[in-house]
Amino acid sequence: MSTPHTSEAPPLFLPVEELLALAGRVFLRLGLSLPHAEAMARTVVAGQRDECHSHGVYRILSCAHTVRAGKVALQAEPVLTPASGAVVRVDARYGFSPLAFERGLPALVAAARQHGIGALAIQHCFHFSALWPEIEAITAHGLAALALTPSHAWVAPAGGRQPVFGTNPIAFGWPRPGQHPFVFDFATSAIARGDLELHRRAGTPLPPGCGVDAQGRPSTDPVAVAQGAMLAFGGHKGSALSAMVELMAGALIGDWTSAESLAFDAGDGATPCHGELILAFDPARLGGGDLADQQQRAERLFDAITGQGARLPSQRRFEARARSLERGVAVPRALHAEILALAD
Amino acid sequence: MSTPHTSEAPPLFLPVEELLALAGRVFLRLGLSLPHAEAMARTVVAGQRDECHSHGVYRILSCAHTVRAGKVALQAEPVLTPASGAVVRVDARYGFSPLAFERGLPALVAAARQHGIGALAIQHCFHFSALWPEIEAITAHGLAALALTPSHAWVAPAGGRQPVFGTNPIAFGWPRPGQHPFVFDFATSAIARGDLELHRRAGTPLPPGCGVDAQGRPSTDPVAVAQGAMLAFGGHKGSALSAMVELMAGALIGDWTSAESLAFDAGDGATPCHGELILAFDPARLGGGDLADQQQRAERLFDAITGQGARLPSQRRFEARARSLERGVAVPRALHAEILALAD
Repeated sequence: MSTPHTSEAPPLFLPVEELLALAGRVFLRLGLSLPHAEAMARTVVAGQRDECHSHGVYRILSCAHTVRAGKVALQAEPVLTPASGAVVRVDARYGFSPLAFERGLPALVAAARQHGIGALAIQHCFHFSALWPEIEAITAHGLAALALTPSHAWVAPAGGRQPVFGTNPIAFGWPRPGQHPFVFDFATSAIARGDLELHRRAGTPLPPGCGVDAQGRPSTDPVAVAQGAMLAFGGHKGSALSAMVELMAGALIGDWTSAESLAFDAGDGATPCHGELILAFDPARLGGGDLADQQQRAERLFDAITGQGARLPSQRRFEARARSLERGVAVPRALHAEILALAD
Repeated sequence: MSTPHTSEAPPLFLPVEELLALAGRVFLRLGLSLPHAEAMARTVVAGQRDECHSHGVYRILSCAHTVRAGKVALQAEPVLTPASGAVVRVDARYGFSPLAFERGLPALVAAARQHGIGALAIQHCFHFSALWPEIEAITAHGLAALALTPSHAWVAPAGGRQPVFGTNPIAFGWPRPGQHPFVFDFATSAIARGDLELHRRAGTPLPPGCGVDAQGRPSTDPVAVAQGAMLAFGGHKGSALSAMVELMAGALIGDWTSAESLAFDAGDGATPCHGELILAFDPARLGGGDLADQQQRAERLFDAITGQGARLPSQRRFEARARSLERGVAVPRALHAEILALAD
């Protein structure tokens, strides 16, 4: 991914703990409660550590903007409802999402173990993070996981020209004992919103197929697409998946669609506010009872992919993580200075 | 979709009941038990009725071929294991899949109502059908549904050249009281296997991006792609989804991947044999309790799509269904003659 802050000077390399402390200090300074600040810091530092710059510490700046817009409940304690069947509900009460997820995770894991599958419905959260940190938190328990969330309505349906869907990410994970899980996490839009913004600021054209102008004509002009609509990846199939995300992580759990999130934003340019649906699956309960056989089958699949030189999703991210843990987390100096300024 | 049997002569228009009786007679004649023959007939006639010709009564011919290959257990009574938590397992015992689904459906619906979500794992089934008939059978109970199944390994992962994945369909449905559900059902391959075969027989080039030759070079030659590999839709995102299908509907439920299905086929050219995972979600349990509000939110989403002239997935199919129920189900005369010949 492109980084929003580039610099000719070499980046700083900071130990994870130091970056966590800095990010936490900023979030406290912005008015978040200590549990929120710590959960937020873990989330953005994980992104930076894995060199997912668009979800790294750069997000501290956009979270600061969201805080200033005044709608986030900075100290809201998420409310966990006792599980109803296999369904766990956490009301984030218009706080940021990471703490709500952390508060719901143990109950989700318990539900999946008890029933074979579990669902965590997070409601009323401001959502700015990638989904893979949540996926990895679930696969760490030996469970498979699927997560969906709407965003702001920026994406037109296939055959249309007006925004209806969010960038609506879908993330999935499969646990691999003793090594990194199989994880993917992608927007169902053809391009990430952050990347569209980068093209707009840089004045560079978008790749073909990413959007249409206000008249519905295919366009590579980022300004025209921002005024028109982004498109889903993969044509009508990606568009259908994006609709599924609105239905599953919106209507199904009784929370907002991307259109409602954007209307609530009312031009603030804040991070989206909506719900999230996270499913967890226990292979020991869903399989026939031979867990080792199930794992070997999955490993043969991964070997067939990597054995021909293709990559597993997240492979680059795990390589970046290893580098960051070895030499420190790279942070561009200009970005570091901006973050430091927020900490004072 | 293209029809494998075209004819200059106008098609026959047959009442649904007549076509069901004919299809059932053929399946009995092929040696299937009465419950299997009836479930199979319902499946292929539904496809023909909805003008999904590649999953219509044409499939009777490929099922006949699969029967002749000798591996299908023609009379196998599916074994339903009592639900373990929210998980229902049906062992098809190497029979065709439609009866196994029908036998598991009531328990899946009950699990979803009891726990909020339910999973139906069908194992060891010969699978030739579209997934939307199953999805619609679930949405008819007011539940949302998601279904996944592998197939034969024909599709290379993104960045690779050797087949690993099946065409691995994903299907989803959302119930709409008083009208047809929102349903999609698509292969994660860029083109359906049946369409590749049609291009091969007709000697016409594939659309770009559907496959690679044996050296991994992009190709539109259907013969070269059949010797090389098909590709997933949507690049690395579609490829990741296809891997998810292998993991969820294979490793997770303790059943075969597409590679194992193809190995078991051993050149027979029979329909794939593997498992299937079907999830059902109860909006009344997953939402906050205001079901009418949830439904209205979904309807606003659909209105925002159709209101700008875009189509909902399955819209053409439901229009075809209305036509078929009005005037009879269209069946090309040549195809009808082939099917009749199997009935004697």
